[in-house]
Amino acid sequence: MLLWLKNYHRQLLAGDLSAGVIVVLMMVPQGMAYAVIAGLPPVLGLYASVLPTLTYALLGSSMVQSVGPMAITSLMTATTLAALAPSGSALYVAMATQMTLIAGVVLLLCGLLRLGFLAHFLSRPVLSGFTTGAALLIGASQVKTLMGGSFSTINLPGASIGLLALVALWLGKERLAPLMIRLGLASPLANSLSKLLPVLVLGVATVSVYQGDLASAGVVVLGPIAQGLPSIGVQLLSLEQMRSLLAPSLLLGFIIFLSGQSASVTLAQKRGERINANRELLGLGGANLASALSGSFPVTGSISRSAVNYAAGAHTPMASVFTAGLMALFLCIPTGWLASLPMPALAASIIIAVLGMLDFDTPRQAWRFDRSDAVAWLATLSGVLLVGVQSGVILGVAISLGGLIWRASRPHIAVLGRIAGSEHFRNIQRHNAQTHPQIVMLRIDSGMFFGNAELINDRILEALQAQTAHVVLVLSAVNLIDTSALYSLAELNRNLLNRSIKLHLAEVKGPLMDRLQQSDLLLKPLSGQVFLSAAVALDSLSAQLQNSHA
Amino acid sequence: MLLWLKNYHRQLLAGDLSAGVIVVLMMVPQGMAYAVIAGLPPVLGLYASVLPTLTYALLGSSMVQSVGPMAITSLMTATTLAALAPSGSALYVAMATQMTLIAGVVLLLCGLLRLGFLAHFLSRPVLSGFTTGAALLIGASQVKTLMGGSFSTINLPGASIGLLALVALWLGKERLAPLMIRLGLASPLANSLSKLLPVLVLGVATVSVYQGDLASAGVVVLGPIAQGLPSIGVQLLSLEQMRSLLAPSLLLGFIIFLSGQSASVTLAQKRGERINANRELLGLGGANLASALSGSFPVTGSISRSAVNYAAGAHTPMASVFTAGLMALFLCIPTGWLASLPMPALAASIIIAVLGMLDFDTPRQAWRFDRSDAVAWLATLSGVLLVGVQSGVILGVAISLGGLIWRASRPHIAVLGRIAGSEHFRNIQRHNAQTHPQIVMLRIDSGMFFGNAELINDRILEALQAQTAHVVLVLSAVNLIDTSALYSLAELNRNLLNRSIKLHLAEVKGPLMDRLQQSDLLLKPLSGQVFLSAAVALDSLSAQLQNSHA
Repeated sequence: MLLWLKNYHRQLLAGDLSAGVIVVLMMVPQGMAYAVIAGLPPVLGLYASVLPTLTYALLGSSMVQSVGPMAITSLMTATTLAALAPSGSALYVAMATQMTLIAGVVLLLCGLLRLGFLAHFLSRPVLSGFTTGAALLIGASQVKTLMGGSFSTINLPGASIGLLALVALWLGKERLAPLMIRLGLASPLANSLSKLLPVLVLGVATVSVYQGDLASAGVVVLGPIAQGLPSIGVQLLSLEQMRSLLAPSLLLGFIIFLSGQSASVTLAQKRGERINANRELLGLGGANLASALSGSFPVTGSISRSAVNYAAGAHTPMASVFTAGLMALFLCIPTGWLASLPMPALAASIIIAVLGMLDFDTPRQAWRFDRSDAVAWLATLSGVLLVGVQSGVILGVAISLGGLIWRASRPHIAVLGRIAGSEHFRNIQRHNAQTHPQIVMLRIDSGMFFGNAELINDRILEALQAQTAHVVLVLSAVNLIDTSALYSLAELNRNLLNRSIKLHLAEVKGPLMDRLQQSDLLLKPLSGQVFLSAAVALDSLSAQLQNSHA
Repeated sequence: MLLWLKNYHRQLLAGDLSAGVIVVLMMVPQGMAYAVIAGLPPVLGLYASVLPTLTYALLGSSMVQSVGPMAITSLMTATTLAALAPSGSALYVAMATQMTLIAGVVLLLCGLLRLGFLAHFLSRPVLSGFTTGAALLIGASQVKTLMGGSFSTINLPGASIGLLALVALWLGKERLAPLMIRLGLASPLANSLSKLLPVLVLGVATVSVYQGDLASAGVVVLGPIAQGLPSIGVQLLSLEQMRSLLAPSLLLGFIIFLSGQSASVTLAQKRGERINANRELLGLGGANLASALSGSFPVTGSISRSAVNYAAGAHTPMASVFTAGLMALFLCIPTGWLASLPMPALAASIIIAVLGMLDFDTPRQAWRFDRSDAVAWLATLSGVLLVGVQSGVILGVAISLGGLIWRASRPHIAVLGRIAGSEHFRNIQRHNAQTHPQIVMLRIDSGMFFGNAELINDRILEALQAQTAHVVLVLSAVNLIDTSALYSLAELNRNLLNRSIKLHLAEVKGPLMDRLQQSDLLLKPLSGQVFLSAAVALDSLSAQLQNSHA
């Protein structure tokens, strides 16, 4: 840990500092917007970008991850608390902080217990369906604010500002970077700078509202932001309140880890680095603990912000140290001018941001490659939209794992024949290969575990014929046999023996053979032999049969 | 369906009838005992063995399955209702019937939706830990009754009868069958007849209590059993009550299916027959619906009772038709003498029955073959004992699936070298094989899916060396690539290309290649080629490198 700090040298400074500056400019409007999504005072979004960002920089394993508020975790906070406390009340804020605390502690514990493998419980189609559904919910929640109606009426000047901001952001998103590249900027720098468009648009909107005194024309504005750093401390709720927050906080922690981990891994693979999932748990757990101590809400790594961080020159977590420092500085300077920021423009920036989260490419690709994955995408999306974002997480895990077992329940088993005059054995359905009337050779094209052990036995029994005397299982493609499958094979051996059929194994992989020899369940009572190759098995067994006939 | 009935012929009759008789003699005490475990009037256990047994015979796919009450489902009924209604009250009975109704309807629906693959969500070690824990809970619950204390006092005559019955059953269980074999009986018949020992012991105990008028000495007895068949009908509870029963009924349905299915499959594989999981869902769902209509409690297939059925000569479900008919006959004859059956002796028969459910062989075998499976056994057992039998089911599914992902998170990837002068490629850690300094050949020994896609990419990047120019993935052991892994490979291709390394594939299996060609995600942007074999890949790439150097 902190190896990067020990080896830090001056040449890295320029890149890290410029990345720190650019990320702060991106984070100020983002933080406030995500606080709004969470139903919390906007300043909390700024608090969530000081200590949490610093804590992750010191504990996490990614060099370029930028930790702070994020859209989906904010949405999960809002939907959980909607039923438990009046929006914006002190209890609401306290409960949001409490959820952050619980999620942080749980993530730290998972890190200490080395449960990093939990990152692999969601498939990409399910994660994509979940994210797309959450983005649609967030976007829909902002339409009212965009139209200038804080409650139910449309305010014309407000709606005009909102729609203008939306159009500006929409056009800029597509065209700004190409324009800057044509003007001679390097492509990565142009892409980073174009991410600062929201700051520019929101700045112009704020100045317009202030100059035109549009707040008195009914345009809803941000209002004054408290100056100064957050006070540090933790307020514990009653045990009963904590219990009601436990389950949603666990789901929240899972999504915090999943988002942060996937952002870290994507960038690390680009940079040829490794991410340690258990250290990510510690980094994200620590960051959320720090956020709770700052009285703020859940934080995690964001792939878009981290990509900007990297593209803007970040080489080490020092960039995030700069981000945190500059954010603290921003909180300490007078920010009265921010009060005029029109909420419709902030809503526009949220809507444009979540557009980037919509993913219709994954289901399209899945539809062509593996339809069951496309169905999983649709089911998760529907679950999030119709049942809710919390249930969506559980549904997603269930669909991912259920799909795995469903796939396993259709194992591929090939009946093998010998390609005439060779040592090669191939699937007789795909090749013109010769079989022996009394010897059935089967290649099992799947790991053998509880999800398919019974079905594999069934398939083997189906492949038998009246005169079959030997069954050879060719295990060249079997990397895994678990205890369930071991018992199942032992049972197969017994059942075949009752019918005077011998069971043989061939091409057992080294590590698997080592483990089979530890057990007395299969090899000891095995009615047949273990052969090195399918060819040796066939030659030896045909010779045996010929001798017994002679 | 009912093919067996169409083809029925007289030679089958003797076996089916004798099996029917023996199973009824086994079912009468079993049914009453399992009703006691469920906290219900004993006569309901007899009701559960008429219509449900008949319904399964007509709908199910097993030839020798015997459906009726079963220990674990009775325990689950009792633990669910303990918190919801006073034991033995009319509401308690109504709720037990309601659970049976919900479970039955859900199983029927699952059968119509063809969800038979749900049977594969529990691994054998987890199922064994679950069953062992449930058996311990059931056994412990009977100790009080065994000691003659209906509430908290020990009744000496009652305790004597209980302990005598226990010793008789214990000794008989081990020694009766060998004795009968020595007396000249065939082994399967002797084993079946020895299963009738409980009827004998309970009969002797009943006569003793009746003759000695021990009921007036404080021995708790069964009391009068209502004569006649159950009335048919269904009593629906309020929506709120049904909602509180929904989740436990779903878990109950899962265990009903799992028990029935595993009993069917075990016997079918012995007999060389096939079980259709979706028809089992229909059979078990129908049986539970029939049980609810009879005002009774959950039923399922029992491996021990079905094995007796088979051993006693059953060839078709006609045996179960006889069982149901004889049980109905039994309900219609006067059974006043049954009232003196001492409850301590019934408790003894339950304790002996659940002893057979304890399984310490699976964890022992797992410990030697695959420690993680032994840990899963222990965790499930502890969960059932410490948290409860309902949570135990959920925990079991979580542990089974979690273990699968955990295993997947350690994929085996071998760096391959060529065995000098041959076409064979082997793991360089296990064999003396030659590698090319600029070509890294990797064999992926695992299906590629969301659970390991990221980690496989990590491992591949780790295997690179400074002068690497080509990476060849040998996919001979890869049976599965899901959409998540496809995206991951596409990402790997891009990342390698950024470092001027080309990615190649070799030995892609036929069905996998077909699907890869449907997608434009990997093969189209692939920087390298797809080779038929590892040898062709190495020869072709080394030639390319030599030409470019020359």
